[in-house]
Order: sequence, then structure tokens, then C-alpha cells
Amino acid sequence: MLSNDHIDAFKNITGPKGIITGADEIAPHVKEWRGKFFGKTDLMLAPATTDQVSQIVSYCNDHKIALVPQGGNTGVVGGGIPGLEGRNEVLITTKRMNKNIVVDADDYSIIVDAGCTIQSVQDAAAEQDRLFPLSLASEGSCTAGGVVSTNAGGVHVLRYGTTRALTVGIEAVLPNGQIYSDLSSLRKDNTGYALNQLLIGAEGTLGIITKVAFRLYPMEKQRYTYWLGIDSPATALKLLSSAREITGDRVSVFEILPELGLSLVLNNIPDTAAPLTAPYPWYVLMEVATTTRDNSLQLTLDTWLEAMMQNGLLLDGAEAQSEAQRKAFWKLRESMSEAQKYGGGSIKHDISVPVSHVPVFIEQTFTALEKHFPKCRPMPFGHLGDGNLHFNVLQPEGTNKEDFLSEWSSMNALVHDIVTEHKGSISAEHGIGTLKREELARLKDPAALAAMRTLKAALDPNNIMNPGVLFK
Amino acid sequence: MLSNDHIDAFKNITGPKGIITGADEIAPHVKEWRGKFFGKTDLMLAPATTDQVSQIVSYCNDHKIALVPQGGNTGVVGGGIPGLEGRNEVLITTKRMNKNIVVDADDYSIIVDAGCTIQSVQDAAAEQDRLFPLSLASEGSCTAGGVVSTNAGGVHVLRYGTTRALTVGIEAVLPNGQIYSDLSSLRKDNTGYALNQLLIGAEGTLGIITKVAFRLYPMEKQRYTYWLGIDSPATALKLLSSAREITGDRVSVFEILPELGLSLVLNNIPDTAAPLTAPYPWYVLMEVATTTRDNSLQLTLDTWLEAMMQNGLLLDGAEAQSEAQRKAFWKLRESMSEAQKYGGGSIKHDISVPVSHVPVFIEQTFTALEKHFPKCRPMPFGHLGDGNLHFNVLQPEGTNKEDFLSEWSSMNALVHDIVTEHKGSISAEHGIGTLKREELARLKDPAALAAMRTLKAALDPNNIMNPGVLFK
Repeated sequence: MLSNDHIDAFKNITGPKGIITGADEIAPHVKEWRGKFFGKTDLMLAPATTDQVSQIVSYCNDHKIALVPQGGNTGVVGGGIPGLEGRNEVLITTKRMNKNIVVDADDYSIIVDAGCTIQSVQDAAAEQDRLFPLSLASEGSCTAGGVVSTNAGGVHVLRYGTTRALTVGIEAVLPNGQIYSDLSSLRKDNTGYALNQLLIGAEGTLGIITKVAFRLYPMEKQRYTYWLGIDSPATALKLLSSAREITGDRVSVFEILPELGLSLVLNNIPDTAAPLTAPYPWYVLMEVATTTRDNSLQLTLDTWLEAMMQNGLLLDGAEAQSEAQRKAFWKLRESMSEAQKYGGGSIKHDISVPVSHVPVFIEQTFTALEKHFPKCRPMPFGHLGDGNLHFNVLQPEGTNKEDFLSEWSSMNALVHDIVTEHKGSISAEHGIGTLKREELARLKDPAALAAMRTLKAALDPNNIMNPGVLFK
Repeated sequence: MLSNDHIDAFKNITGPKGIITGADEIAPHVKEWRGKFFGKTDLMLAPATTDQVSQIVSYCNDHKIALVPQGGNTGVVGGGIPGLEGRNEVLITTKRMNKNIVVDADDYSIIVDAGCTIQSVQDAAAEQDRLFPLSLASEGSCTAGGVVSTNAGGVHVLRYGTTRALTVGIEAVLPNGQIYSDLSSLRKDNTGYALNQLLIGAEGTLGIITKVAFRLYPMEKQRYTYWLGIDSPATALKLLSSAREITGDRVSVFEILPELGLSLVLNNIPDTAAPLTAPYPWYVLMEVATTTRDNSLQLTLDTWLEAMMQNGLLLDGAEAQSEAQRKAFWKLRESMSEAQKYGGGSIKHDISVPVSHVPVFIEQTFTALEKHFPKCRPMPFGHLGDGNLHFNVLQPEGTNKEDFLSEWSSMNALVHDIVTEHKGSISAEHGIGTLKREELARLKDPAALAAMRTLKAALDPNNIMNPGVLFK
């Protein structure tokens, strides 16, 4: 329990608006939206400025009070929820820090407060004919500080990279309360260690991000969206290489989905329809985008599709003929998570392997899963272009859900072991949080783990920043 | 002086081939190629494997022997030269570690030993129809480990990013001798702190890079190269934005040069000719490249050039009609450094500012320089698309060279102060080394500097890795 002295000290820093103690107001901030993590805290701080954040962190460091930073609370690994596992932690939210959004169109950059939503960043850029390419399901609520702290991915990584590639400058408060400022939009800067990079993806364990400079791109003016039926992930890879080449490397989306996933969507999600007349083992949602109206690209793509049909790589395909049809294709992709609930219990993995390893990785994993849990139904889907699959496994039909879900850890271990053989990642997009600490400790390169602990101890000797996350 | 015991210990690790003590053989490794830094050492180690590097570093850490890692010795800031300022340091070169180059075309990646030259990486990729886009003057001799340790830039950063953006995996030996291994080609991996990123650009102060995984791109099949005459850097910026948009963001090179630079080249470098019939205040060397033969792009560019002539942004322009002509254009750009020697003494800066600030930055700096040293002749040139200028200043005509060069530090301070007002970088490409330690200490964000020292002390408590570099 926090003493009144502490609460008064915080009130002196933030004013009354920055102190939230009401259980009702706190409630939505201490549970994970999918219902996997439920935490608690007596105090939520909502500072309005970087200076207030600095004073809060400094005070907490002096008094060894643990802080959990939170953006839009859209994470899924328990990385931003206070009070898990009985810890006493103060929640600090950036939600009041969302006033400043400054676009520099000539510089192709934007500088924003940490609490700004990604949607608001996209919109501000678009108003000046610029593209902020980060795009993910939670963009309406996730924040600039949050996506940087977790190095968020999304559907445009193939072309534009993860949040790491889009982040050119950071202002943050370090665990000692100092304000670290590298808030510029420089494309080139070789003046010492890349501290920005260390803060990106650190999940709030090395400081609190208060402002971000992102890079922008020329606005995409024309998009070509395809739904393709194919026989295998190996074929998908061949199509991807070929499409990159013939389009002048303008493929911006390349997602793969299995027939099991599509049929669950079609059978359970309203207002969905199959784009092709027959089912195929796998589907690809491909988008090619360009910054200018370019009719020759349409011709190039038409010719290419015909050639791919003739050489047998492509079994069938449809091009979206309108924005409505494009949205209908995307709805199939975006309904995958929702639809799989209708298939019963599912055990989830968020993994990546080198892109070229995806086909053999899928084969090996399918075989191992069948041995481990006969008739379970793997339905990997996602960002093939990045080697990143949401490798979810559905329970066998007609079996008990609880029995199946009790295999969560053992199945995770099985899948992650194969991932590790391929030098893959056990958390491609979502981070470690509290959810994957044990798997990280089990599988991460030991020298890397030791160095991580050394860095954490050096920069946060009192372990006040998000102490339950990454390490146990 | 190293004792014989130490030398025997090293010999046990590397075998006789890995021990070089002959002054003649060492000589080219202890001087900087431009002649600015002259060091010394009694011992150069040339390990052949990562394991040997690990044993060497471990031994040095135990015995507090300082090590200076060296790749191709192409740096210009005294970051890879042992024995500067009287330090006792052993040189460790990666030159024997250059055997393994493995391309994975489907994965668009390549894994190489640290001692491989960048030219050899480019060539291996090209053999499998892939592009390794890092391109810089020293590519024939600089190495994979060297470009990663210094986050090298070059002429393709605008489109493909710096070495940081191209590096997807690293194996390195940390200062405690442990082998850190994250040698995969993953596009997405959120499993803890980005240690790779910390090693990139650390100039050998946090470990020795032994292997690298780089990302590759589809091979460029067609290039359009232009030499454009314009009135000002502000116009250049407008042309750049417009060109990015109309080409589908396929501008791969956008370099700016002043008339002073071109005339020095034309007057002093053999086999050069002006591409345009009249002189203009500034020139742009622009290249648009694409992965496929695309005649419509030619048409688009022709139309665009005509429009830019008509609206007055473009004063005149020439397109390279052959590979020979393309090379002739590039020779003008690449002769800038050489040509300026004919203009007398020059004081150099390697700076960057946000791209949109370049025009006003140039104006302000010209004005301040004229006040500081009347009739000095600034000739900034370089990578406008990245906001990175080699801002060199020539002595006034008919004055004494030594007098002028004695202003080196005061002029650096003047230029760097204006850079800092624009939140720019005092070392965009070349790093800090020993050359810019004082300026770094003077101008870097204090919280960043303090964090850098904390990290260095935590990871290298005995200060054995390149101790004279970055910090004083």
C-alpha cells in the first residue's frame, strides 16, 4: 500500500487531474482486453508532460516504487498490466500526453506525443499527402509510445519494416528520472551507442517513452489487391519473389491463410463470401501499392497473373474491382482470430523463421503436432512475407476443450523447439511481457540473456521500471 | 610491452599464422589511409575463427590487455588504429575471417564472415540475382564487420537505409569473451533488448563482430541516371519529393553538388566533362532504379522532366544514354574529395540535419562562415536525400594554407553549433573514433552521454575494447 505521503508527493507533481484512485476508473487499465491477464493497483498516474514523468520516475527511483507504463492497453502478453503475481506497482499512463502532432512533409517525418493513437498519426500524415505505413488491428487505440516500446509489426512490414524501421527519434525518461532526448528525424547519425534502438522493444523496462519522431513515406495513391488460391506455402514463396521483381518491389502486403481458416470464417462470420468458386489448400492476400496512378502496373500485373496461371503456380485468383471488394478480401483475413473461436479451443504461437524456411517449418511442425496431439488442427496464418506466422492450433473436432487447453505449455514448447532449430523467434510481434518469460529464459542465447540482465541492472539498478516483464 | 608469456598464450590460441609481430607487416595497419592518424603496436592478432576471437578476448579481459579491432582499415576518424595517444593496445584484425558467404535467395538474405569485403558480399548476392544495396567508395576493401561496427552509409541510404537497416543478424564476441549469437535473418523478432542494434555503430567498443546476416533486395535491372542543373538546395528538395511520388518511390540516389565543386573537378581531374552546356549554381545527380525492364517508367520520367523544365524548377538536365555516360556522371560526383585538394586547404565536416532543414542550414552556415573567415569557400556536397552533407570549407584564394587550417577546431565548433540548433548530427556517416570525442562530449545530450558511459562500464568493466574511442 502506498502511504499518503507518496500520494501527496505525486499530486504535487501532476496536480489532481493526474491522480486516479477510483476503482471504476482504474478497472479497464488493469485487465488485458482478451481476458488473459487481470491485475490490480491502487493508483494510476496520468502525467500531462515529460517533465511530470521525469519527476514521477525520479521520486519512484528514490523511494523504490515500481512503475508499469501503459499506452493503449492493447498488448496481449501481460506487459502493461500492473499488480500481476501480487506485485505492488503504480500504473503510469500516457493517455493525457496526446496533444502534439507535427508533420514535416518535406522531411517525410512526424513528431508526436507518446499518447497519440496510431490512427491519429496516420490521419495527420495523410492530411499532408504522406503515408505513415504502420498498420495493425488495434491502430484506433494503440499509442505511439506503446508501438515503439513493443516494436509493433502489422501488415506492412514486408515493404516498410517494423516500428523500429519507422522510428527515427525518441524522447524518454530513463529509470533514474533523467530526460533522454534524441527527438530528431535524422536519417543518418553515428554519434555513439544507439540508445533509441535499445528503448525500442524494451517493453517499458528501461524507461518511459514520452515523444517519438517517425519517418513518413509518399502516400500510396493506387492499390491492386488480389485473393489467390494456391497449393502450398512453397508456391506462395515463389509467387512472392516473382511479384517483388515484376512490380519494381512494390508488394506491400503478402499474407497467407489455410483453407481451414477460410472455411471457419465463411461458416461463422456474417457478411463474408468466398472470392473464388472452388476451395484451395492455401490462399494469399496480396496487395501491390504505388504512389502514383500507373496504368502500366495494371498491365504488368495482368500479364503476370496469366503467366502464373499457365505455369501452374496459381490455381485461381481474383482481383478486387472496387474498394468495397478490397475490404471484403481484407475482412476474410482480419476475421481469422475471431473465426477460430468457433473451432473450439486454440493454442497460440506468434513465431517467425527465415522466410525461406516457412514451408519446411510448417511441414515439420504439422508432423510433430499430429504425433503429440492426434487430429489437432493447426491453422498457421499471417505475414508470410516476413516469415511471421500466427501459428494457432485448434482442438480436434468433438473433443473436450479443457483437456486440449491443458496442453498449452507442452505444445508451446514443442512448437518453440522447432522454431529454435530454424533460428526463429518465439515472439515475432507481441513481445515477451510476463507471458513468455520462462520460454525466453529457456531458449534465448545465454550470452544475450546475460547481457540483457547486465544492461537492465546498469540502467535500472533499483528495478523500478516494469519489474515483472522480460525477466523472472 | 607485452610479455613473452602473453605472446605464447596468444600463439596457443591462434597458431603461428595468427601472430604478426613484424613491423613491415604491421605498418599498413597502424596508419590511417588519408594520413591523419599514425599509431603503433607490437602485436597484431589475426584469428581464423570465432572461437579463437573468444579465447583472445577472454584472455585479454583476464589480463586487462586492451584490444583494437580492425576490418579493412578504411575509417577516417581514428577508430581502428592502435597505439594512438601513447596507449598500449593489441591490434586484432578480422582479415583471415573471410571464407564463408552464404546466400539464401528465397529469404533475400546473406550470411558472411566479418572479414569479407563489401564488394564480395555484393558479388555473391548478384550471382543469385539479388542486390546488396550498401555502396560506398571503399567497398573493395571495407569489411562486413567494419561497416556494421560503424553503421556505414553510402549513396543508397535514401532508398535502402544505412547498414543498420540492412543488418538482420549478428554474431559477436562480447568484452567478457562470451560468444553472442543472433545470427539469423529474421524480419521480426521481439524477444528482449535489441543487442544487435547496440553493437551496430558501437565502433568496436562493446565487442568484436565475427559474422553478419544482411538482408538483400531484388536486383535492380534498369537504371535512369540524370545530371540536373538547378538554382538552389530548396529547389532540389522540391524535385526530390516530386520524383519520389511520380516514380513509385524508386529514387535510389539523390546527390547534390555546388558549382564550385564541379569546376574544381573539371579543371583538375583528367577525363571529365560538363554534362550541361552552361554552369548552374547547383547540380543534382539523380538515379531511379527498378527491378524490371519497365518502359513506362522512361516515359513517366521524360514527361516529368519536361514539366519541371516548364515550371522553372529545372534549369537544364541530361540523361545518361549509356553505361559509359552514367559512369562519367558518377565520376564527377566521386571526384569531389580529390578535386577539392586543388582548391588548397579544406576543413571538413560530416554532418546531417532533417532533410527539410538543409536549405536554411546551408544559408545560415554560409553567412556565419563568411563572418568567421571572410572569403572562405564552403562547398557542401553529398547525400541531400538523407540530409547528410560533406560540408567542407576551402581556404580563400591566394591565402596561406596553414593559417587557414589552424582554424580547424574553431570552424568545426561554429558549424557543429548550427548543426545542433537544427537537432542535427555532428557525425552522420563516419563515426566518432578518436577524432570527435571532444565535440561529442560538448554537444551530445547529457542523459545520452551518461547512459552510454553506464552501458560501456557495465558490458566492458575492464575497458579492454577499443578504450580510446568514443570516450575520453
